[in-house]
Amino acid sequence: MLTGIHVSLIGGDARQLEVIEQLIEMDASVQLIGFDNLQTIPNGVTRTKLTPEALEHADALLLPAVGTDDKGHVVSIFTSEELVLTEEHIASLPKHGKVYTGMAKPYLTELCSRHGIGLVELFDRDDVAIYNSIPTAEGALMMAIQNTDFTIHGSNSIVLGMGRTGLTMARALQGLGSTVKVGVRRPEHYARAWEMGFKPFYVKDLADFVSDVDLLFNTIPVLVVTAQIIAKIPHRSLIIDLASKPGGTDFRFAEKRGIKALLAPGLPGIVAPKTAGRIIAQTLSHLLMEDAGKRRNDA
Amino acid sequence: MLTGIHVSLIGGDARQLEVIEQLIEMDASVQLIGFDNLQTIPNGVTRTKLTPEALEHADALLLPAVGTDDKGHVVSIFTSEELVLTEEHIASLPKHGKVYTGMAKPYLTELCSRHGIGLVELFDRDDVAIYNSIPTAEGALMMAIQNTDFTIHGSNSIVLGMGRTGLTMARALQGLGSTVKVGVRRPEHYARAWEMGFKPFYVKDLADFVSDVDLLFNTIPVLVVTAQIIAKIPHRSLIIDLASKPGGTDFRFAEKRGIKALLAPGLPGIVAPKTAGRIIAQTLSHLLMEDAGKRRNDA
Repeated sequence: MLTGIHVSLIGGDARQLEVIEQLIEMDASVQLIGFDNLQTIPNGVTRTKLTPEALEHADALLLPAVGTDDKGHVVSIFTSEELVLTEEHIASLPKHGKVYTGMAKPYLTELCSRHGIGLVELFDRDDVAIYNSIPTAEGALMMAIQNTDFTIHGSNSIVLGMGRTGLTMARALQGLGSTVKVGVRRPEHYARAWEMGFKPFYVKDLADFVSDVDLLFNTIPVLVVTAQIIAKIPHRSLIIDLASKPGGTDFRFAEKRGIKALLAPGLPGIVAPKTAGRIIAQTLSHLLMEDAGKRRNDA
Repeated sequence: MLTGIHVSLIGGDARQLEVIEQLIEMDASVQLIGFDNLQTIPNGVTRTKLTPEALEHADALLLPAVGTDDKGHVVSIFTSEELVLTEEHIASLPKHGKVYTGMAKPYLTELCSRHGIGLVELFDRDDVAIYNSIPTAEGALMMAIQNTDFTIHGSNSIVLGMGRTGLTMARALQGLGSTVKVGVRRPEHYARAWEMGFKPFYVKDLADFVSDVDLLFNTIPVLVVTAQIIAKIPHRSLIIDLASKPGGTDFRFAEKRGIKALLAPGLPGIVAPKTAGRIIAQTLSHLLMEDAGKRRNDA
């Protein structure tokens, strides 16, 4: 339980609703900032403006997926007011306070480090990335079904990268009856891909494996789907790039050759905000309980 | 090969393009009626108006998925002209000629029977229905991903009916990590569902199994998802009805209770026209070759 733990949430999207629900279930004190348009707020939750005073007792400050932009703006679908997180706000957090966000821009990293405030990038954690790979893969399947005139079943697909997202993607495709080749860079991934019934190859040899590809999913965040590769891909193929912006595909050349290539946006928050919110909520609760335990032991 | 076989196509949608391509590859003589807007037509294909004379040498007449309506209208996305198949047209077909369609309305059935012309309803065939169940299941997955805020992975799903579509649907859900219960009516289906790792139950006991359902897929073409059942379904659930119109769901009551229930349209032609066209083409070619063989033996 999180009894006595103060959590402030600034901004966010539908995911936050699930986080709020779970925090309340665990008896945390929840304060919402930038949620003016939320019709009803649950019992025991307070709503306030973004001021340094409001954050003085926050054991945890939860920001949305992208945290802040380079100037401190925080996105919220629940308010029309502008939310800017400043140095003053971070400075007012208690010494043991921590900031939780999906990803942090240098702006946030610097502010936190300057004031000795712990910063946790949730999406960086392996467990969160693996859980999030599930809605990502389902979103990618949805895009593939929408953007092709053939079925995934019976298709030749390639997944580049066998990390946290690549493995989930490959399994989802296999589950629907696609013949899945997996491009890896490490021999242990080659071995695992083979054990799982995929057809493994080394990414450096990609050019030799694309001539019959229907669906190409990239998860590697460097340029791997180059013009040379795209030149060998059949016209009917669809490329879906799941690597973080700007992806690993030469989109300009794909367009020039008339091959459809899509950079997938943050799919978990789009296709499954409830599940994505639960992933954040469960990890956050776990971390908050761990921290509270440590503080009790130190006291 | 289909050398010397005359096939006339009247109207249709994107699926027909795949059929035309495959018929040409197999060297059939192809005649298109109601394809005026098709920019380029392949070599060796002729285009003509819908007249009795045009059909005098047709060994096979291929109509679109729905054949004709109750007054003989044939749908074509490739022309703005109205296409009406009349008794005169059917009467002009050679005696050994056959009409192929997805489904036939009584209008078409009667005309063919009156003139002793064979009529094949392709979607009625078990093999075609099983092949078509693949794009149907993928389309249903797409609808489920689009219309829920949770992932299929980790969800509790129910598939009603373990026929040609139900089995495919259940396997697709299982492949994505859903816990799948399958409602059956026959003990051999119960046994097979159990063998495949699903949780089987008898449809008559459905009310006992819906309290924790997230996704409910119906394939049974009679009213099984009744008001009594819907009253026990959680609000978050999504019902997707894959049975032919009007489906097996009390949609009126679902709406009243605020539970989202969708009657899936003809998904194969929508989500995977190329695959769906290939299914038609392969079955049609096979049947045409069989018929040609019989005619040679009779001669």
